[in-house]
Amino acid sequence: MIKNRIEKLREKMTEFDCDGVVIFNIFNNADLRYFTGADIEGVLVVDRYEANVLVSSLYYQRASDVLGGNVVLSKDLDDVVNFLKKRGVRKLGVDFGRSTHRQIESLSDFQLIDFSNKTLELRMIKERDEINQIKRAAYIARNAFMKVYPMLKPGITEKELADELSYQIRKNGGEKEAFQTIVASGANAAYPHHIPTEKPIEEGEFVVIDFGASVNGYNSDMTYTFLMGEKSDEKKELFNAVFYAQLFATEMIAPNRTKASEVYKRAKSELAKRGGVDKYFIHGLGHGVGLEVHEFPYLNVESNVVLRPNMIFTIEPGIYIPGKLGIRLEHMVLVKENDVEVIAFTPFVEAM
Amino acid sequence: MIKNRIEKLREKMTEFDCDGVVIFNIFNNADLRYFTGADIEGVLVVDRYEANVLVSSLYYQRASDVLGGNVVLSKDLDDVVNFLKKRGVRKLGVDFGRSTHRQIESLSDFQLIDFSNKTLELRMIKERDEINQIKRAAYIARNAFMKVYPMLKPGITEKELADELSYQIRKNGGEKEAFQTIVASGANAAYPHHIPTEKPIEEGEFVVIDFGASVNGYNSDMTYTFLMGEKSDEKKELFNAVFYAQLFATEMIAPNRTKASEVYKRAKSELAKRGGVDKYFIHGLGHGVGLEVHEFPYLNVESNVVLRPNMIFTIEPGIYIPGKLGIRLEHMVLVKENDVEVIAFTPFVEAM
Repeated sequence: MIKNRIEKLREKMTEFDCDGVVIFNIFNNADLRYFTGADIEGVLVVDRYEANVLVSSLYYQRASDVLGGNVVLSKDLDDVVNFLKKRGVRKLGVDFGRSTHRQIESLSDFQLIDFSNKTLELRMIKERDEINQIKRAAYIARNAFMKVYPMLKPGITEKELADELSYQIRKNGGEKEAFQTIVASGANAAYPHHIPTEKPIEEGEFVVIDFGASVNGYNSDMTYTFLMGEKSDEKKELFNAVFYAQLFATEMIAPNRTKASEVYKRAKSELAKRGGVDKYFIHGLGHGVGLEVHEFPYLNVESNVVLRPNMIFTIEPGIYIPGKLGIRLEHMVLVKENDVEVIAFTPFVEAM
Repeated sequence: MIKNRIEKLREKMTEFDCDGVVIFNIFNNADLRYFTGADIEGVLVVDRYEANVLVSSLYYQRASDVLGGNVVLSKDLDDVVNFLKKRGVRKLGVDFGRSTHRQIESLSDFQLIDFSNKTLELRMIKERDEINQIKRAAYIARNAFMKVYPMLKPGITEKELADELSYQIRKNGGEKEAFQTIVASGANAAYPHHIPTEKPIEEGEFVVIDFGASVNGYNSDMTYTFLMGEKSDEKKELFNAVFYAQLFATEMIAPNRTKASEVYKRAKSELAKRGGVDKYFIHGLGHGVGLEVHEFPYLNVESNVVLRPNMIFTIEPGIYIPGKLGIRLEHMVLVKENDVEVIAFTPFVEAM
């Protein structure tokens, strides 16, 4: 158990007048890993005095070996309910957006308090060790990319390049890819979440490569775009629009003052100025990165969170012209006391 | 949209007196892929007359290009609710175990009917093309394994072997691994879901290798166990216990007659007979494999589902002795009209 994090959770408990919190980890085990330090699956129960993980027989041994104690063998929701009662919990915090309806139904004997996003808010501000892990994940991905960069030539297929990059991410110290590596060329690049195909990369195409590494649970996420062959004026202008949108959005961030939505709007207005290509910008500008690849804070038009020191998030403007092309540039920034630090710069070889 | 599958869903709708179903895909997009044929993220709405997917701007273009129509741009839960109303749905089926509480809360204007497991039940019986995809995923994984088998020698680390196997799965036709490849040696093999480490494989150890490929969304899942070096009588007996548990469990299956729980009990009793090692068997005997790596049917002590033709599931007895060793053998079986077909046999080089 990681005591300082459990304590922060208890402060939120007090703030929301709960005497216990249950975390179900339905999407992934990021919260569990954050509070326990162990890579296991299970249910976390924190009350005023103890923090325990309830795990199935599949994880019991590993959880016990890693944590030493506070591990409870549990086979179903009834066991969770009984454990909460045994611990004397009455006012129970639980995230309604990260629990199934079935789970919430099973808790009808408790006074439930919606604990939505509370753990995401804690995880949004990174500790020093977390920052180092994320930087490491970024460097590993960047090093892996350097190994496959010489292969990026017309003729190689999207999937061949993606497979080699995924392999190098592992060979260079990554546990695995942070997410399925994207290599999208030509018209395929107009799909932001393209899955690599047997299509060969061709002369004259933009190639979007979106990749990251995962190390000790922490992730990196970056996107490079290259143009194969001759740089026509039209293509240069499109690339530059995205490049300057990323640059100016990054530069405008004033720690403790700038809101996430303002950064989104800055990128969008830069794209608008440059030929009105903001109409092809169809997603948010960025997202936090940590134990999840996508977490708080989100940089979109609705997000009023103020950007604060020790947040890490992506800045990734993109334009997607259906049937034609796509361009996306994504780097990660760490907010510091007075400015931001870019973690692993995007190559700008296509910018002029 | 895959019409025959949508029709089967409508039959379930009628059976449960719904005039519409909404599928949120909170864990993964397997249901969406099953009913639409497209690898996209979104919400599926099926009513008596139409089937539509509601997607964000991120997936709108791809969904439209793949499906041709029946794609609705939608940004949040309010849009889903409004669309359901526009379609005239009143009695709405929704899976309470595969939807978040927040999602179910947003549907308070409808008469809700719990549609738990209905899609899993449909997907449990595979169509011919699905069987072929799963077999292909199994052959790819097996071929990939043959490429790395020569590297399985004392000195190579768990992670090195796992990385090479994951790479070969992709090079041999897999889109990606079905799940993070497990290589667990010596005492690490006592954790069923071990994550490969820098520990070198050593002489005298059992090495458990659990791996699979993913192709067109369909998965394979198999586990081999090898003994490095000399086969002591004690180790042979342990291996044989698992080997015969798998063999007899597989052989006992009579299509349309045998229940899943009976197969589990057969494996367990075989382990009990052989030195009482059933006490080290800490998980279920198997699970269905398809668009998800773990799906219906589950082979455990509580599962009363009758095993029927065109089900595909794993049979994977294992024993885990904390601090010492682990052994697991996992193959996949396809139930046919009169017998079962083993897909990709487990090597039995350690059995005597």
